[in-house]
Formats: sequence, C-alpha cells, structure tokens
Amino acid sequence: MKYLATVEVTLRPSVLDPAGVAVAQGLTQMGYPVAAVRVGKLIRLEVDAQDEAAAQILVQQMGEQVLSNPVIENFRVALTPL
Amino acid sequence: MKYLATVEVTLRPSVLDPAGVAVAQGLTQMGYPVAAVRVGKLIRLEVDAQDEAAAQILVQQMGEQVLSNPVIENFRVALTPL
Repeated sequence: MKYLATVEVTLRPSVLDPAGVAVAQGLTQMGYPVAAVRVGKLIRLEVDAQDEAAAQILVQQMGEQVLSNPVIENFRVALTPL
Repeated sequence: MKYLATVEVTLRPSVLDPAGVAVAQGLTQMGYPVAAVRVGKLIRLEVDAQDEAAAQILVQQMGEQVLSNPVIENFRVALTPL
C-alpha cells in the first residue's frame, strides 16, 4: 500500500534559530504583534509499505537517518493512506 | 489573546523542487521505497490578537507578504489558543 507521509522537522527548543529570529525581526518591524518565531522543515513523501505500522517504522528510520539531525532537531511523522 | 500559529509553506505542485529531488535520490539509494518527495517550510509563531478571526487575518497577511512567495508557493495557516 502507498501512504502519504508528512514529516515535521523542528529545531529543539534549546537550539538558536537564526532564520526564526530574522523572520521575527522583519514581522515586528512591519508592525505585526509576533513572538517566538521558529522555522522548521515540512517534508511530504509517498512511501510504499505492507501496512501502516510498517510505513511508520520506515518513515521513522528515514527521519532519524536522513531527514533530521537528531543532535539539534526533533521530528514528527503523520501518515495517511493514498 | 495569544495564539500559536502554524504556517505550512509548500511549493506549488507545478514548481520543480530540487531539495525534494535530492532527498528522494538519497532515500532511494539507501533502499527506501519512496516517491514524490517535496520539501517545504514549517513556521511556528505566537501572535497577539483580539480573537481567533483577527489572528487568522493577521497570519494570512504575514503569509502573503513575508512567509511565502505567492508566485511559487502555497501556504496554510492553523491556529491554537495559548
């Protein structure tokens, strides 16, 4: 079966996020009442697996090995059947 | 009131995504059964607004003016009260 996987990769809260700081400064200068801006990655992919549990394991492995840097990032996986 | 806004910024389907192609090639070479990899941005921020409707309008404006490039990207806003 094919599944659509959505992987949200975010910097760990303790890690400085220069892109987030830059966006926050820009928005604040434009008058927007924002704080605590964090910029992460959103990866969508189709994965082929026998069932949803197998797909979850595969995408979890991809997240650890390729899609995130576990030292500084967290990630979260969501699956929907295609 | 404060709201946590999550903005998903994705390339339009017709736009080539070199980062997605690179990730797909890497994952495929490692033996993962993946296809159609797309890499987008996930922006989280706190916004101050009178109510959820006002927060939605503010974040929609930020999305159009700053967070996305409307020529090549789509974006989607989700809000949760803090």
